[in-house]
Amino acid sequence: MRVLVIGAAGMIGRKLCAALARDGALGGRPIESAHFVDLVAPAPLPAPFPAQCEALDLCAEGASERLIAERPDVVFLLAAVVSGEAERDFDKGYAINLDATRRLFEAIRHEREASGGAYVPRLVFASSIAVFGVPFPETIGDDFHLTPLTSYGTQKAVCELLLADYSRRGIFEGVGLRLPTICVRPGKPNTAVSGFFSSIIREPLEGREAILPAPDTVRHWFASPRAAVGFFLHAAVLDVKRLAGRPNLTLPGVSATVAEQIEALRRSAGDGAVRLIRHEPDAKVREMIAGWPTRFDARRATALGFAAEADFDEIIRVYLEDDHVAAVA
Amino acid sequence: MRVLVIGAAGMIGRKLCAALARDGALGGRPIESAHFVDLVAPAPLPAPFPAQCEALDLCAEGASERLIAERPDVVFLLAAVVSGEAERDFDKGYAINLDATRRLFEAIRHEREASGGAYVPRLVFASSIAVFGVPFPETIGDDFHLTPLTSYGTQKAVCELLLADYSRRGIFEGVGLRLPTICVRPGKPNTAVSGFFSSIIREPLEGREAILPAPDTVRHWFASPRAAVGFFLHAAVLDVKRLAGRPNLTLPGVSATVAEQIEALRRSAGDGAVRLIRHEPDAKVREMIAGWPTRFDARRATALGFAAEADFDEIIRVYLEDDHVAAVA
Repeated sequence: MRVLVIGAAGMIGRKLCAALARDGALGGRPIESAHFVDLVAPAPLPAPFPAQCEALDLCAEGASERLIAERPDVVFLLAAVVSGEAERDFDKGYAINLDATRRLFEAIRHEREASGGAYVPRLVFASSIAVFGVPFPETIGDDFHLTPLTSYGTQKAVCELLLADYSRRGIFEGVGLRLPTICVRPGKPNTAVSGFFSSIIREPLEGREAILPAPDTVRHWFASPRAAVGFFLHAAVLDVKRLAGRPNLTLPGVSATVAEQIEALRRSAGDGAVRLIRHEPDAKVREMIAGWPTRFDARRATALGFAAEADFDEIIRVYLEDDHVAAVA
Repeated sequence: MRVLVIGAAGMIGRKLCAALARDGALGGRPIESAHFVDLVAPAPLPAPFPAQCEALDLCAEGASERLIAERPDVVFLLAAVVSGEAERDFDKGYAINLDATRRLFEAIRHEREASGGAYVPRLVFASSIAVFGVPFPETIGDDFHLTPLTSYGTQKAVCELLLADYSRRGIFEGVGLRLPTICVRPGKPNTAVSGFFSSIIREPLEGREAILPAPDTVRHWFASPRAAVGFFLHAAVLDVKRLAGRPNLTLPGVSATVAEQIEALRRSAGDGAVRLIRHEPDAKVREMIAGWPTRFDARRATALGFAAEADFDEIIRVYLEDDHVAAVA
């Protein structure tokens, strides 16, 4: 089987490509070749199959058509302009998060037609819990409506609808994954508002100070990078008939308050680590976070075999095993 | 105030234009001028303001820009490729129901920018209960998710999301109206699957035979053409702050079974009229209808002052007053 990963240089993309290279197969079928693309060329990695790493702008004329002309059996679509940038730059957000995605879907439709209906790839699409917006119940069920409060969330919700329509028409086998906030993110603190959920764990574990701009009563919805990769791999081999025409899934995760995160850190690394967290309340951050979902009842995805961590202690253990500087070094 | 009606030659469009001409005002403000457009030129009608009736293809290069350059204060967008055609012709459905709508939204965004932010029109968008798809509860609430089962429903749901995002950004004041099935439609029987809901009432009232292809136990959701026009007029003057960021509304209607429709016809026109209904069960129609919604709890729209008929008897009375051939002649 041939695999295409779009957005292969991002944090999840890199880990997904590494998992594909490690396994050399998907759902028991060996991977013959892979194409890993992103705006910047993904770093080459050792794999038991030929893997082409390419810098490619998905918005460029003919880019999608060229990628799909290779007829990959599985397409992982992770490329996106992040939330803050899509909010600041209206045109760029819509161009990448909506138009480029739709152009990819169209490229598959035309390739399918050219193949006489034989070419029907699996398409795994990275959506987000940003498709939800307040007011919502404390626990959001699988049939709650999507009322995004950002252009990013709108673009993801629109692509979910297109994914469902193209799948219903048999153009591809789509699976849309509403990823929880991924935590603990490795690497440097980033500028995303949600970044502190990771940095208050990662920085102390690495012996550095971290800033907590939000009250510790804030509750949010998390899964580890390892769980995220697991979601993508499972979605690639899932029997799509089991989706019963509703291919977009809210994924399981861990609902935790910041205080619960901190207690898990204390159990893992002691009081000294916790003392590295400096509280610097930020009214603006507090206000933004008030609109974020706190808990989901991800019943459908769980029944379909998607799994995240059981609690935040496990999320920290995953970080220590996969990304802790001492462990990796 | 200046008014633009796109889709002015359709059944609802014509009645909406006639109501604007009759009232000469919207929300107490006199209408200075109107522009009524459709693929075929809307028929001229007597109005107390200059009304331009124009044949225009909204997909044509520059069409939206030209319409919006006039800076209408209120835009009614009713133009659409209907459900069956959007299903048969993938490209045409997406071109008109999604791309042309988005181009209109974009034309407003650019006109607003050109005006230094001063131009922020009201935009009333005709959506549909086709945004919903089985399985759903017997009564669908205001926060139930949209899982359309047709490309038409997908296109409407996508436009609802765009409408909400553009409204949130202050580009226009959007109101999306999920219209019930409009009944009793005047005129000749059409080819829409839902057409029989109207023809089993209209044809007997006009002394003609009608065919009923579905079991009389089928339950569906209705409002009259007069109620539909009322929805558009109310949406044009509603205080959008009351929408609280959720501008798409499921509208009130009448939930009735075909048997209840027929009993209302009997009360209105007697046994002779009912005998003109010929049962010709059609398995395909029966199957399609099984996926249609039966009842909504349209709490939000009702609280916002939208109103439909109280029961199916009233829907028949509205037909007799507004569209019955003898009454109109």
